[in-house]
Amino acid sequence: MAAFALGWSDADGRPHPGDGGKGVRPAIALLSAEAVGGTAESALPAAVAVELVHAFSLAHDDIIDHDERRRHREALWKAYGVGPALLTGDALLALAVQQLAVAPEAMKYLSAALVELVHGQSADMAFENRPWRGPSEVTIGEYIEMAAGKTGGLLGAAAAAGVALGGGAPELADRMWAVGRDLGVAFQIADDMLGIWGDPRVTGKPVHSDLRRDKKTLPVLAALAADSPAARELSAVLSAGVTDEESVRHAARLVEEAGGRTAARAMADRYVSAALQALDECLPDAADLRVLCASLVNRTR
Amino acid sequence: MAAFALGWSDADGRPHPGDGGKGVRPAIALLSAEAVGGTAESALPAAVAVELVHAFSLAHDDIIDHDERRRHREALWKAYGVGPALLTGDALLALAVQQLAVAPEAMKYLSAALVELVHGQSADMAFENRPWRGPSEVTIGEYIEMAAGKTGGLLGAAAAAGVALGGGAPELADRMWAVGRDLGVAFQIADDMLGIWGDPRVTGKPVHSDLRRDKKTLPVLAALAADSPAARELSAVLSAGVTDEESVRHAARLVEEAGGRTAARAMADRYVSAALQALDECLPDAADLRVLCASLVNRTR
Repeated sequence: MAAFALGWSDADGRPHPGDGGKGVRPAIALLSAEAVGGTAESALPAAVAVELVHAFSLAHDDIIDHDERRRHREALWKAYGVGPALLTGDALLALAVQQLAVAPEAMKYLSAALVELVHGQSADMAFENRPWRGPSEVTIGEYIEMAAGKTGGLLGAAAAAGVALGGGAPELADRMWAVGRDLGVAFQIADDMLGIWGDPRVTGKPVHSDLRRDKKTLPVLAALAADSPAARELSAVLSAGVTDEESVRHAARLVEEAGGRTAARAMADRYVSAALQALDECLPDAADLRVLCASLVNRTR
Repeated sequence: MAAFALGWSDADGRPHPGDGGKGVRPAIALLSAEAVGGTAESALPAAVAVELVHAFSLAHDDIIDHDERRRHREALWKAYGVGPALLTGDALLALAVQQLAVAPEAMKYLSAALVELVHGQSADMAFENRPWRGPSEVTIGEYIEMAAGKTGGLLGAAAAAGVALGGGAPELADRMWAVGRDLGVAFQIADDMLGIWGDPRVTGKPVHSDLRRDKKTLPVLAALAADSPAARELSAVLSAGVTDEESVRHAARLVEEAGGRTAARAMADRYVSAALQALDECLPDAADLRVLCASLVNRTR
């Protein structure tokens, strides 16, 4: 089941030359170690750990969100059942923790990322039950905190643990943790955009599922904040509940018309720029790492 | 939800002066630290961590096993839903890891226990789908390995991490890890016995649910191994599937008649004796810890 979750085999255990994910997090860990003069090998336990935590979080998130598809295949729980998928997630997490158990200088970031991840995921879940408008609407500030936790923590852990295992100074690792959190916000916004305007044949995820389940994604929050006629219509459409294909498409068009797509794009760019500026200050010669970080908002999957 | 899982509040968040569990694992951690001349306070992070891991495992196990009751109340997933309960389990685990993140001498045992826990839980789950008799029947050896992992790992981590944080030698911590694993086998057998002959008003768990779901518990495995007329009848009854109350009661009587209860009791005593002998060799003056360990097989809940 873990091999299936990692994209190495199909549901019957046969080798599957498929989509094992982008490998962004382990790449950040290895490149961060090299950027401080260490070897990529020195950061291998961190690279393995962050990829295992990522696989753990996908396994559990798909159960929580009832998502049936992942990377062009059935979700783990859909292929094996909720109990086995839950336990497989736990196994992936246990193995991740084991990787860094006796490397406290890296483990402290992994452990912080785990706490952030759960906080962020929990906020994301709670947001679904809050109204689109009114005194208890989800603010963009709350969204950013959620995204920094849910997505940024693990990117931060990848960078900081990579620096720590590569022999970098603790202060440098702390700063790279902050870089990762900013990157995470940008990464999450890019993910939100793919969920509305991405090509499901490329992303491997069902399109518009975020809209259907009242997920408070940044493009929609930004559109609603515009307070234009399109924004007001969007508010009415969303509050009525979008369930059929037509109303979902209509809502997506309104998000774009109200400026949600442009605003989301601008905000993602802003967070990446901030991250890259901090990266340049911390690690001026980390060209490969810089290219990787910059690419996170220009992706199609 | 975490407060509910830990027995501190009811499902509405009101303080609940209820049953927060026995606290065996944190007690072992604190007493182990004192036994090597450390303070109880020094082992507090380990005590907290093992209790959080225990709460995590109960939250997830109840989802996996579809158990609706826990400690005289609804199970966490029954009270809040599967997704929130799953995430609460993850949160408890993340907080546990955080406790020992920068204490590698203790973390190495917690991390090993996590891996063992998942291995054991996974074996326990796989056993349910194996036949009661025949070439692929579950052996007592396999059961012991499962119990040592599922239940023993965390007891071992409690003892070993307690010793490590209390300032004990690494070799002593390793030996206490082994003591914990033996204790775990005894503890699991005692648990199996309570599942068949315990008073549900005291245990807070539904009686006979193990039998209904073909769980390969030690009393049943030992009874079947007897190869007496009662054992053969038990085999036939179990293979036909026990679902109604009458056939479950009948099976429980046959387990006792075939000697399963006596054999289970003897095996639990044997594992406790081995653990206590090793404990006496490691820590000859640990009177309180010895009393606690000895009590683990003589419990009613």
